[in-house]
Amino acid sequence: MSVMENLSHRAKVLIEALPYIRRYHGKTMVIKYGGSAMESEDLKRAVISDIVLLHYVGIRPIVVHGGGAEISQMMSQLGMKAEFVNGLRVTDTETMRVTEMVLGQIGKEIVNLIHQQGGRAVGLSGKDGRLLIARKMETDSGVDLGWVGDIETVNPEILKVLESHDFIPVISSVGVGQDGQTYNLNADHAAGKVAAATQACKLIMLTDVRGVYRNIKDEASLISVLTARDARTMIDRGEAAQGMIPKLQACLDALAGGVERAHIIDGRLPHAVLMEIFTDEGIGTMVLND
Amino acid sequence: MSVMENLSHRAKVLIEALPYIRRYHGKTMVIKYGGSAMESEDLKRAVISDIVLLHYVGIRPIVVHGGGAEISQMMSQLGMKAEFVNGLRVTDTETMRVTEMVLGQIGKEIVNLIHQQGGRAVGLSGKDGRLLIARKMETDSGVDLGWVGDIETVNPEILKVLESHDFIPVISSVGVGQDGQTYNLNADHAAGKVAAATQACKLIMLTDVRGVYRNIKDEASLISVLTARDARTMIDRGEAAQGMIPKLQACLDALAGGVERAHIIDGRLPHAVLMEIFTDEGIGTMVLND
Amino acid sequence: MSVMENLSHRAKVLIEALPYIRRYHGKTMVIKYGGSAMESEDLKRAVISDIVLLHYVGIRPIVVHGGGAEISQMMSQLGMKAEFVNGLRVTDTETMRVTEMVLGQIGKEIVNLIHQQGGRAVGLSGKDGRLLIARKMETDSGVDLGWVGDIETVNPEILKVLESHDFIPVISSVGVGQDGQTYNLNADHAAGKVAAATQACKLIMLTDVRGVYRNIKDEASLISVLTARDARTMIDRGEAAQGMIPKLQACLDALAGGVERAHIIDGRLPHAVLMEIFTDEGIGTMVLND
Amino acid sequence: MSVMENLSHRAKVLIEALPYIRRYHGKTMVIKYGGSAMESEDLKRAVISDIVLLHYVGIRPIVVHGGGAEISQMMSQLGMKAEFVNGLRVTDTETMRVTEMVLGQIGKEIVNLIHQQGGRAVGLSGKDGRLLIARKMETDSGVDLGWVGDIETVNPEILKVLESHDFIPVISSVGVGQDGQTYNLNADHAAGKVAAATQACKLIMLTDVRGVYRNIKDEASLISVLTARDARTMIDRGEAAQGMIPKLQACLDALAGGVERAHIIDGRLPHAVLMEIFTDEGIGTMVLND
Amino acid sequence: MSVMENLSHRAKVLIEALPYIRRYHGKTMVIKYGGSAMESEDLKRAVISDIVLLHYVGIRPIVVHGGGAEISQMMSQLGMKAEFVNGLRVTDTETMRVTEMVLGQIGKEIVNLIHQQGGRAVGLSGKDGRLLIARKMETDSGVDLGWVGDIETVNPEILKVLESHDFIPVISSVGVGQDGQTYNLNADHAAGKVAAATQACKLIMLTDVRGVYRNIKDEASLISVLTARDARTMIDRGEAAQGMIPKLQACLDALAGGVERAHIIDGRLPHAVLMEIFTDEGIGTMVLND
Amino acid sequence: MSVMENLSHRAKVLIEALPYIRRYHGKTMVIKYGGSAMESEDLKRAVISDIVLLHYVGIRPIVVHGGGAEISQMMSQLGMKAEFVNGLRVTDTETMRVTEMVLGQIGKEIVNLIHQQGGRAVGLSGKDGRLLIARKMETDSGVDLGWVGDIETVNPEILKVLESHDFIPVISSVGVGQDGQTYNLNADHAAGKVAAATQACKLIMLTDVRGVYRNIKDEASLISVLTARDARTMIDRGEAAQGMIPKLQACLDALAGGVERAHIIDGRLPHAVLMEIFTDEGIGTMVLND
Repeated sequence: MSVMENLSHRAKVLIEALPYIRRYHGKTMVIKYGGSAMESEDLKRAVISDIVLLHYVGIRPIVVHGGGAEISQMMSQLGMKAEFVNGLRVTDTETMRVTEMVLGQIGKEIVNLIHQQGGRAVGLSGKDGRLLIARKMETDSGVDLGWVGDIETVNPEILKVLESHDFIPVISSVGVGQDGQTYNLNADHAAGKVAAATQACKLIMLTDVRGVYRNIKDEASLISVLTARDARTMIDRGEAAQGMIPKLQACLDALAGGVERAHIIDGRLPHAVLMEIFTDEGIGTMVLND
Repeated sequence: MSVMENLSHRAKVLIEALPYIRRYHGKTMVIKYGGSAMESEDLKRAVISDIVLLHYVGIRPIVVHGGGAEISQMMSQLGMKAEFVNGLRVTDTETMRVTEMVLGQIGKEIVNLIHQQGGRAVGLSGKDGRLLIARKMETDSGVDLGWVGDIETVNPEILKVLESHDFIPVISSVGVGQDGQTYNLNADHAAGKVAAATQACKLIMLTDVRGVYRNIKDEASLISVLTARDARTMIDRGEAAQGMIPKLQACLDALAGGVERAHIIDGRLPHAVLMEIFTDEGIGTMVLND
Repeated sequence: MSVMENLSHRAKVLIEALPYIRRYHGKTMVIKYGGSAMESEDLKRAVISDIVLLHYVGIRPIVVHGGGAEISQMMSQLGMKAEFVNGLRVTDTETMRVTEMVLGQIGKEIVNLIHQQGGRAVGLSGKDGRLLIARKMETDSGVDLGWVGDIETVNPEILKVLESHDFIPVISSVGVGQDGQTYNLNADHAAGKVAAATQACKLIMLTDVRGVYRNIKDEASLISVLTARDARTMIDRGEAAQGMIPKLQACLDALAGGVERAHIIDGRLPHAVLMEIFTDEGIGTMVLND
Repeated sequence: MSVMENLSHRAKVLIEALPYIRRYHGKTMVIKYGGSAMESEDLKRAVISDIVLLHYVGIRPIVVHGGGAEISQMMSQLGMKAEFVNGLRVTDTETMRVTEMVLGQIGKEIVNLIHQQGGRAVGLSGKDGRLLIARKMETDSGVDLGWVGDIETVNPEILKVLESHDFIPVISSVGVGQDGQTYNLNADHAAGKVAAATQACKLIMLTDVRGVYRNIKDEASLISVLTARDARTMIDRGEAAQGMIPKLQACLDALAGGVERAHIIDGRLPHAVLMEIFTDEGIGTMVLND
Repeated sequence: MSVMENLSHRAKVLIEALPYIRRYHGKTMVIKYGGSAMESEDLKRAVISDIVLLHYVGIRPIVVHGGGAEISQMMSQLGMKAEFVNGLRVTDTETMRVTEMVLGQIGKEIVNLIHQQGGRAVGLSGKDGRLLIARKMETDSGVDLGWVGDIETVNPEILKVLESHDFIPVISSVGVGQDGQTYNLNADHAAGKVAAATQACKLIMLTDVRGVYRNIKDEASLISVLTARDARTMIDRGEAAQGMIPKLQACLDALAGGVERAHIIDGRLPHAVLMEIFTDEGIGTMVLND
Repeated sequence: MSVMENLSHRAKVLIEALPYIRRYHGKTMVIKYGGSAMESEDLKRAVISDIVLLHYVGIRPIVVHGGGAEISQMMSQLGMKAEFVNGLRVTDTETMRVTEMVLGQIGKEIVNLIHQQGGRAVGLSGKDGRLLIARKMETDSGVDLGWVGDIETVNPEILKVLESHDFIPVISSVGVGQDGQTYNLNADHAAGKVAAATQACKLIMLTDVRGVYRNIKDEASLISVLTARDARTMIDRGEAAQGMIPKLQACLDALAGGVERAHIIDGRLPHAVLMEIFTDEGIGTMVLND
């Protein structure tokens, strides 16, 4: 392409984004950030730039992040042993403290990256403004997971205050009980609940797979569109991959709370968020009400 | 390109626009709209979509338009004869009335197109909110041009009211005297003055050439960057094309009033506005203070 | 009268206006401006001063104007032939364009006069802020009237924005379709719909007769008060003058939409608007709900 | 006059008031209310209706009132003896208390009348919001007048709060010292200081004479326009009537504080306030800066 | 106690107030001020400092005061005879005027004291902003009490305006009829109605006894908590002291209007208001819904 | 004391706090929280209740905290060796990460405690909203301390946003460079700079000594009032204890930036903050401008 053709082409691509910008203008989107997209420096930069772009074109992003790998690594440095039951980390008081420390630090790093790209952000945990009120999770098996929590209430006021002053909220999945007890929350779960509480138009979950597969072992069996009913059936029948269950559950929580669309997309693709939002094709699996 | 490559490419182009969106966020840009860009249906749609995109990404566009060709055509339909002195239309009372009618109708058409593309707009003349206060132009030669006016004051309040409620102002180059007399204004002149009065960050003038040429007859002699001093020299020495003089003068008015950059660009290119704003290379001629 | 008697008398007249000023304080009134009141320079000045006075004493006037005579005159200048069916102008594309141009220019002239008298105004058509959304009128007879439109929706937001910043809206009776098509609207019809959409306390229609007559040919048979039911009956039974039908229909639209009182008054009287509003007797015909 | 002529005439009178309404729109006027205008029921009603009209046409009236006659009457009922030195009431503690009681009751009566005419009002003394901070007046003669005070500071905040919520402030001329001592203020003096502190456009003083006379004994020697310098000269040379001195002094205080015009008018004329404000001729004596 | 022990002790007392400050933060409390608390200078200062403290810790006090003793005293000075029927003052026009004067003066004195302690206040009667609309009281016995009134409506707008600008309203128990007639109101009655109209969290009535006694003659039979039902029974059965009946009735009015708690406390104790509000024990009698 | 005496006494103590509450109403106070006051559970609760009380009585507290002991402990758990030069922790990248984690967790715990006591808070680091922009500290000795930073700029906007919505900001002493580098800040230093940037009326530093001693080894030589000049002299002459130097320096920074008073007080006393603020005697050492 000549220089002029290149400029012209770029202008056309921008214009093709206009209908999407218009549609989502002024609306909230919750982005669950985790997995590979949080590990590679390049992917990190790409995700953050996507988030900052959303902000600048008038969409209101909220970031919810996990950090399981970093927690395990720090525990190992401290000579502690990570134990999991059904994918949930058994959380004693010391584990809880390490979890809170590590997640807090990851949150501030995301905040920092957002500022580096020209946005403004504040890192929150569920304790700030009592954002995420939790209670001890009860398991079917009766196994005691320690300070693993379920979200009881989301108090979105601090999110609204920050958004209305152009700060992007970055949320660590740490909750607090009515009595002040700290709880370890699943970040997917937190993202779904936050999306519902903020009446987000979309919940976007970054994962390390292409989306939901019909056949767990076959990438080619990617499901583009999944109804809430089918998602529930997949969970009930055990047809979903182990790691996909909390993500599907979070999508269902969000949809039940009034979110229009939930997306499980491939965080290994640079700019996966924009690819999903600003095109008709989209990527990954979209979950929507029946 | 595969579908995924295409999506990825488009996301990258969007991200490349981020630094520009950030830089101009919340700032006003005045776009002088005229010439070919106002005649072809395709170009019209392209210009309007550019303007609507600017609005949605947080930039505040103000449109100033002319309509010389349409005025002449209507005058001819009415059996009136158009007469020009130094490129200025001699304007008797009847010509003034036709001018006001034709420009008003063009303005409302632009408003309509903005709405068709998802924006919101209001068509103004200099009479609305006494936006453009004018007085009779005095010519060096002493020739009486009738109701051709010079702008004395711009009252930007109505522009601020509309912008703060997300309406794009579309301004016809018709002025009004302190005594209520209607004046025919040069649209380039009006655009320059409006840019200065609104403390715009940019004035962008759509023309039917590639920009300012060093050698009037040679497109290849396009000047990319021109200082205010050199622009003034070109006017004084008669080195600028006849049609380019009011445009350069408008750029100088804008710069003198505090506008950072003025651009004379090729309105025949679809999305010329975006090509200028969202790239480092830009297009056409940029005029800036020394 | 001595000077002091004269001053005293004038003060008393002002005081007699107090109950009316109080009653209508902060309320919207829609004034349909047309006919003779728009032709004589003296009457024009008088109507405009009435409107500006309303604004200054805390009432919120909205002006809706027509301009049939001027349109016909311009068409004739252009060698076009005006054709009417049941009082409605058959409107092909060229007629539509002339209509829009002429009405726009009339609107800006009214705006100018309001400013001359110390008020502030903005001239709007139904395209600005998509104020008047219309669709093609369907006639009982099946005759195709071209781009004559019926109002589908009024979007009063732009009116509220202007009013809240002390600009008087001046509206041309031009509508726009969902698809961007321009429509020729009857100004009486537009005034009635605007009054309903803005929850005006009054709709005041300036005409060239004293009001509604019991006997079309007898000025002395003026009806002072007419219920909506009786007005409907007059229309249905063909007892109303041809030109009065759209006015009565507009009154009924306004009343059905919640307007308290609609008035058909004689625009040939200087200050007819004030005579109606600021006295108990009022003038012309008042239409009110049963 | 026929009914129609009468309506037309009244409309014309209203329109003649427009230039004055426009000029004073949004501005504050301080009205010193006292004398006959406070005694006759008819005059009271007339003055109050003038004040309410000012409010409704967008002018912001503030009323300052005295009540010397009523105070003396109450003192006499209580068997107390009123004593005056140079027109100032010698004020011991008991006199102060009676003064405060009587003035407060008069203020509430004015408030009541304003409500009866459709306005809204709140009665204040200088204690409310520490509106009028005073100190003991020192007399040239060294005579001790007791709790007669001079105004040190006006704190207009409570006035602004009331005005911005459409309540007309009605002020009794009672002041308070920094230490809480109650002071008896001259109402003319208070009106002049309040006018200055609120940057009123006019101070209007209702008296029982036609205005300032050149020759104290000759009503026909009314001075229509008096410069501040000449007013000062009249006071210094003893050419002004005894009762006129505090009024002239209040006018001078107001003018010195930035008030544009001060008027001493005849409160015995019904609607004297409107006669002054809404006509070019005006009535009484206007005092203005040189 | 050593200095440090003393400081430490005082800090602890402050901290013990925190739960109460938190609970009542931003809420309105109506304080009926009268009796001994209004007579002794020391008690006055104490009550006022309590009120100012409430204001500064974020509670919104409204003061309603009576002044029966002062009225009787002034009437006696004027040679008028006070007459009572069932504890209500028979009020002819002259008595009404004296009542209004005396109460107004008391109100301004309270305002003054509030300012002396660093608060801000405005003294109101029921005429200001038509705060207390009353009508002639009808007695069961048919005895004509003259201008004794019952409250028909409370218009709390002026209270909200003052509160939102940090002025404490001080209300005299004088009402006004729809026709402008002045009415003498029982201050307890006014306090109860104002508490209901402002949705106060508490009504606190200062009296000259310890509270409600089970046995009228026995101070030791103080009732700490009384249900609305029991209060009504006490009134009906004549078990309450004569002077306590209007107070109990005011409590019932307040509770019926949505006030949470009403308190009858001993105004002879310095800082009785704080003793009630900032401790769990409280003092006096608390009346609450069943 | 009897119950009533006790209540009465408590009310008096509250009233004695009124002058202080009034004086500091609406003003910001920065509290440097650290040392013993952060270690004992009882002292923690006491400090936090003081802070919540300040908030409820209309003062705006900002908390800045350190956490040196916890950092060292965590480093030791991780097998890392803490190294200090002149009291500053040599900070390599891994130490920086541990510091950020530990401080973040401490901040969220403080937030949690504030909520437990009925306040609302948000935990911030210098990265949130780019609150604390830092650069690498240059030492006189040329020793490289790693990522130890000096504060270049404080951006208080996020503090204002939180305060205006009734959230108490809790700040960790972590800074960020223009390039995104994380810096370890001295918490005293951060507190001083934040106090200056927010125009606090007071900076209060909780320490583990009684204040500044004239003779380092003699508690009895406590200096109650210290001028800025004398504080500077003490630092320069080496008369201050090693640990006191950064605290004195922070006081000087605050005073130089316009803070009225800086206090170094004994955090080992429960409610030391209230003891300082709400009494005339105060505690510890007050530093003030000469």
